[in-house]
Amino acid sequence: MNAEIISVGTELLLGNILNTNAQYLSQELAALGITVQRQSTIGDNQGRLADFVNEAKQRCDLLVFTGGLGPTADDLTKETVAACFGDSLTFDEVEWEKIVSYFTRSGRQVTPNNRKQAMVPVRGHKILNDHGTAPGAWFEQEGHCAVLMPGVPYEMKAMWTEKVRPLLLARQNCTLHSLTLRVLGGESDLEYRVGKLLENANPTAAIYCKTGECEIRITARAKTDTEAEKMCRDYATKFYDLLGDAVYDEDVTGLEETLVHTLKAKGLTLATAESCTGGMIAQRITNVSGASEVFGYGYVTYWEQAKTRMVGVDPAVIAKYNVVSAPVAAQMALGAAAAAGADIGISVTGLAGPGGGNACRPVGTVYLGAARDGTVYVKKLFVSRPGRALVRARAAQMALELALRLAQDKVPAGTLPLAEAAQRDPAALDALDAAFLAE
Amino acid sequence: MNAEIISVGTELLLGNILNTNAQYLSQELAALGITVQRQSTIGDNQGRLADFVNEAKQRCDLLVFTGGLGPTADDLTKETVAACFGDSLTFDEVEWEKIVSYFTRSGRQVTPNNRKQAMVPVRGHKILNDHGTAPGAWFEQEGHCAVLMPGVPYEMKAMWTEKVRPLLLARQNCTLHSLTLRVLGGESDLEYRVGKLLENANPTAAIYCKTGECEIRITARAKTDTEAEKMCRDYATKFYDLLGDAVYDEDVTGLEETLVHTLKAKGLTLATAESCTGGMIAQRITNVSGASEVFGYGYVTYWEQAKTRMVGVDPAVIAKYNVVSAPVAAQMALGAAAAAGADIGISVTGLAGPGGGNACRPVGTVYLGAARDGTVYVKKLFVSRPGRALVRARAAQMALELALRLAQDKVPAGTLPLAEAAQRDPAALDALDAAFLAE
Repeated sequence: MNAEIISVGTELLLGNILNTNAQYLSQELAALGITVQRQSTIGDNQGRLADFVNEAKQRCDLLVFTGGLGPTADDLTKETVAACFGDSLTFDEVEWEKIVSYFTRSGRQVTPNNRKQAMVPVRGHKILNDHGTAPGAWFEQEGHCAVLMPGVPYEMKAMWTEKVRPLLLARQNCTLHSLTLRVLGGESDLEYRVGKLLENANPTAAIYCKTGECEIRITARAKTDTEAEKMCRDYATKFYDLLGDAVYDEDVTGLEETLVHTLKAKGLTLATAESCTGGMIAQRITNVSGASEVFGYGYVTYWEQAKTRMVGVDPAVIAKYNVVSAPVAAQMALGAAAAAGADIGISVTGLAGPGGGNACRPVGTVYLGAARDGTVYVKKLFVSRPGRALVRARAAQMALELALRLAQDKVPAGTLPLAEAAQRDPAALDALDAAFLAE
Repeated sequence: MNAEIISVGTELLLGNILNTNAQYLSQELAALGITVQRQSTIGDNQGRLADFVNEAKQRCDLLVFTGGLGPTADDLTKETVAACFGDSLTFDEVEWEKIVSYFTRSGRQVTPNNRKQAMVPVRGHKILNDHGTAPGAWFEQEGHCAVLMPGVPYEMKAMWTEKVRPLLLARQNCTLHSLTLRVLGGESDLEYRVGKLLENANPTAAIYCKTGECEIRITARAKTDTEAEKMCRDYATKFYDLLGDAVYDEDVTGLEETLVHTLKAKGLTLATAESCTGGMIAQRITNVSGASEVFGYGYVTYWEQAKTRMVGVDPAVIAKYNVVSAPVAAQMALGAAAAAGADIGISVTGLAGPGGGNACRPVGTVYLGAARDGTVYVKKLFVSRPGRALVRARAAQMALELALRLAQDKVPAGTLPLAEAAQRDPAALDALDAAFLAE
């Protein structure tokens, strides 16, 4: 089965809004085993839309429309597609009552315009919208189908998930299960390692990249839920075998969620001391609902004296080694944990740029610390691609990774340890500093 | 002149990446007075692409392509479009040398595949790519034009701005100037107030909405730069007349940038005390290059005891009024400024949800404080639309707005003042608390 996605709306052609619907539907259709051959955006123009639908209908089995179901004169998708599919529309009392009651509840007046939204297919059928006023529509002619959904992303996604996807699955007489692996590391390396697993018809597997990590989405089609779930699980095992603990979790929104859950499960607390990330790590952690069980204190120590006053960094250590250095990162992490009375302390000090770099510490140089149980583990990160936002995002991601490994009772990879007792010992700090500068 | 935008790439049809190029180019073409009639995404399939180009060429004057200029076998845009425009390609020594030198510099080997990228139009012309290896191409036949740019957004945008836009302007014998107003407030209210100004042929004006603010982009076409600039300025005046100081700045990336610049100009410093925003405000401020001149200390006081220990909130005040209350917000802002020795202190305490609300303080209730010169101004925000991320984002935006107004020596709208000297006075705190609860 092949399909085309058609987004209707002049506001898209003017660039007033970003089209995220097409990407969402492409992923969803791919998961159903339906090949998307084209995505198109057409304006609110009846003639041009009709021409397009007549062409597209010849090219493929399924046309998936979003947008143009509103009450105004330029919302024409339903009328136009109906005509192209040899169908017509009729007034639906049930839909009209829903619209009137929706308006009444929100204290507004219905206008005659709104009657348009209560028009539904005669030969095809309406698709219930439980999240807005505009019902969707399904048209069918000579084996070609058209499905019409609203353009507002959250209404469209709800209608897709609750009504349209089940309908397509029923037609294919199958069910679907998905599983998302979250993997630390960059795209090119990952694609190289798992490349062959991405070329599979069922389950399918696709990589989506984020800053410092990737998402691998596995989707299986089968006759039963149980079977589809088992196929996903079996296929996931192949990725675990190749990637080991680079796969840090499943079906979470990001590293911060796994970190908060892990800390909670272990009964641990965390504190942060941030310089160049400036609150980004704390912000990510507190974005997780329930973060207050594991996180109470965040120190944004942007100035040198803030590092001293808030988390006890020795000014002489800053003067001797530079504020962007392993000894300072070590004292910040230990100091954050101590000041907050937390089990784990993490720290970041770096040069996000654009100004301020030199040959020894170019822009993009970041030192990170993670302290637990009397030891701090220090890591150096260098982000060569320019961009203040990127340096900060990569540093925050790395800090969360260090915290997760400590919470998992692991020694974080690529770090050097310093005993808490040695954090004011000049020889130990010299050795730590030298080890990183020699890299 | 009318145009179509064509994005080439199977990865787009699979939904692996979000198409941001089409929106960018739609905005840019609209600013040039060129009507975009359709956006399409086509896979890396020569037959289907050729069919598409032959159709589209009949429909419009200009075809704008992105993607498919890479070195691999499935990068076919250049060959395909050349054939459809009655043109052919020839090997370009200069481009080839650039590619070889690029690879050598980055320590990689050129492969025979890469020769494809050095192929340029015979009758049309190449478009230099100063930010990557793939040159663009321009084809022309019987008044119809096609321009081919890379798919990587930053390469595409650079080629558009530096080469393609000037070329289109030269053909239209005109120049372009843009100005972006940043406006506090929501979309529907704003559209209502300035609606008529958005329906204008030249200058054009368009609204783009963000959380808690909007961007109004004004673009004028004229024979000379000076004339276009003056047209923009004159048109901007009409918006200022309608919107007053809701227009907080021009051509900045966000409120945090204006705040940092204003603080710097006035020689003021700022400190933050954040509870439900959890570092988001500090993160936004420190995202501005040069923030270290005005911002040194950020307190993420997620726990009640952190509010007491870090910024001196009285535990009895928390116990009496609730941690989400006007008195607590007032003490947090004053305490942050005092602890940091900053001129201005801002604070946020609220319920981001999803859990934790009650009838008196539903989820979405936020109190904010902004202190300067012995007075703290307190404001209450209620975000009725659910969503933890939205409550936090709206609260952070509002806090930055309060700080900006104080930095501008203004009393922030919708706030109640409390004298610093009265911050431990039970009667004054009772009155403040009661004033907000009565709302």
